[in-house]
Amino acid sequence: MASDKTAQSLTPNAVRAAYNLIQPYVHRTPLLTCKTLDSIASTPQSPEALAGTLFEGQTPAQPNFRFYFKCENLQRIGAFKARGAFHAVLRLLEERGEEEVKSRGVITHSSGNHAQALALAASTLDIPAYIVMPHISTSSKIAGTKSHGAEVIFSGSTSVEREAVVAEIQAKTDAILVPPYDYFDIICGQGTTALELEEQYAERSSGILDAVITPVGGGGLNAGVATYFSDKPQTRVFGAEPSFEGADDCRRGLQAGQRVESVSTLTIADGLRTPVGVLNWEVISDKRKVEGVFAVTEEQIKATMRLVLERMKVVVEPSAVVGLAACLFDEDLRRRVEQEGGEKGWDVALVFSGGNTTVEAISKLFS
Amino acid sequence: MASDKTAQSLTPNAVRAAYNLIQPYVHRTPLLTCKTLDSIASTPQSPEALAGTLFEGQTPAQPNFRFYFKCENLQRIGAFKARGAFHAVLRLLEERGEEEVKSRGVITHSSGNHAQALALAASTLDIPAYIVMPHISTSSKIAGTKSHGAEVIFSGSTSVEREAVVAEIQAKTDAILVPPYDYFDIICGQGTTALELEEQYAERSSGILDAVITPVGGGGLNAGVATYFSDKPQTRVFGAEPSFEGADDCRRGLQAGQRVESVSTLTIADGLRTPVGVLNWEVISDKRKVEGVFAVTEEQIKATMRLVLERMKVVVEPSAVVGLAACLFDEDLRRRVEQEGGEKGWDVALVFSGGNTTVEAISKLFS
Repeated sequence: MASDKTAQSLTPNAVRAAYNLIQPYVHRTPLLTCKTLDSIASTPQSPEALAGTLFEGQTPAQPNFRFYFKCENLQRIGAFKARGAFHAVLRLLEERGEEEVKSRGVITHSSGNHAQALALAASTLDIPAYIVMPHISTSSKIAGTKSHGAEVIFSGSTSVEREAVVAEIQAKTDAILVPPYDYFDIICGQGTTALELEEQYAERSSGILDAVITPVGGGGLNAGVATYFSDKPQTRVFGAEPSFEGADDCRRGLQAGQRVESVSTLTIADGLRTPVGVLNWEVISDKRKVEGVFAVTEEQIKATMRLVLERMKVVVEPSAVVGLAACLFDEDLRRRVEQEGGEKGWDVALVFSGGNTTVEAISKLFS
Repeated sequence: MASDKTAQSLTPNAVRAAYNLIQPYVHRTPLLTCKTLDSIASTPQSPEALAGTLFEGQTPAQPNFRFYFKCENLQRIGAFKARGAFHAVLRLLEERGEEEVKSRGVITHSSGNHAQALALAASTLDIPAYIVMPHISTSSKIAGTKSHGAEVIFSGSTSVEREAVVAEIQAKTDAILVPPYDYFDIICGQGTTALELEEQYAERSSGILDAVITPVGGGGLNAGVATYFSDKPQTRVFGAEPSFEGADDCRRGLQAGQRVESVSTLTIADGLRTPVGVLNWEVISDKRKVEGVFAVTEEQIKATMRLVLERMKVVVEPSAVVGLAACLFDEDLRRRVEQEGGEKGWDVALVFSGGNTTVEAISKLFS
């Protein structure tokens, strides 16, 4: 079953194979609609709202949006990361055999959703897991990871410090590294989000899905989704990311024609603070696979998160809403939907990537 | 079509008839499950958690719960009130004719979800609506009511002041009063929640629904649900309400054998500050229809709301979670589920009555 794990092998069939493997272990999360959000997004922005932006002075666009929200915030461990983690561990079992994987265990370093996802996948499949977390991680995330039975080892917070601790544990245990995003089997796992949402869309509409937009952090989700849709040119794939303190590394990289290798940002979209990985960059920078990446401001993320919480009544983390924020505020995108979609407009699937927040974090954002 | 609108006429068939009328106008809201919440509720409380409560010193109960959450927070206008309001207006049209109702219009006084629900129903059916709101109402609720095309008239905040303004408007317009809960057609409309959740439960389980718990404020929802289940003795119906500052008027009334006529409380469950209405009391105090009503504290409501937001990722208002809070914290209920449900436990449907809150309100509750 060993495969050539290059960007060339990232095909829709690889995603389908991943889906067959992980289906018993993950939720088929709902694809929700919300007429209120459709209507808000389909109302032109006021000229005043454009003041001080790149779009100042333009006539506001008049797009028509029908949204389909793929609710990975309702996925196991509260984020799409469960898909990739289960797939990576199941593939290790296939490739190296149960005995080897169970005796060596798996290891990663993460302070976020990948930590909990790998802990859950490993405990479900009865494999030891070592998770290196910065000691400044929030106690709820540490508790969440431990609750899935993983051994949590603390490190400093820089990547050099984390990797040193990983190397130390690996020297002792020979545990197999499962990286969070820049890794073939993780990308195929995250791509199953696309397969499911396409099926669910077809169950309720005989139309064509015009576009899919996902958040871009390390890029595993976006690259996986773009891989799945790569042989369906009618469905455009886009990414979205925060612009704060240079978090829009992917957008800037695409402009410059070269991947941005490091990012240092404290954007509120804390799942999107990392630069795009090398393998993911190969997919995302391929114009035939990903048409473009939009960047949104902190205020736009907050305003969008408020709309989703208050009007749609669904709990999302800030990272989850950057795609919707682009639809609401990016006049280039809105103009394109107006021009290409015309009166009919566009059917747009948006991946709500995760919902791991707390009432305290919400309080802090909005007080 | 005129009917005898007494408690005796509140039958399952009256609820079915209501459903036929309102179905085109309301959402079939999802019935969600959440294994995490099942597991938390099925874990015995610690003896320390019982200290200082009525249950101090008892051995914590070991119940097994499987919850089915009827998400009326995802209903139109964000609460079950849309059901009753549409039904009441549609019945007026049937009974009095379009011409009369359209020329006279409808009127109510409410600062909450009923105001928006009646405004929506009236505007949908092209009928003028006058909504008397206390001038201290939050601006978002006033804006919400106006956005459905209703004429908002301000009053003082006591019921005497509100009713005086209603009388004044009625003298001018002859508008027909649609009360918020103590009203036959409203009760039948709210009861359709039960019909739907029973259908949805049967779609996914061949078992028996052991219990349904709804919040009790004015009692329209609880009386409607109890009416629908009144010929199905295997499904027990319960109510739940806050205990803060005497908001548990229904529970106290049941103990004393007499309806409590007035309540003055500022419980955070702001939808449940009113006393149970006269007609609703007739239903709820009938032991064959409603087995009992539980009361929960402000801290229990907050802890439960946190669980629903953070673990289930669904936005609810405080009033919505009192039933779940009873399952989590009331040892009498938990003991009963342990004893009557045994190892199998109980399948319990909980009505999440509404989701109309704001990020500011969440911040205030949890900061």
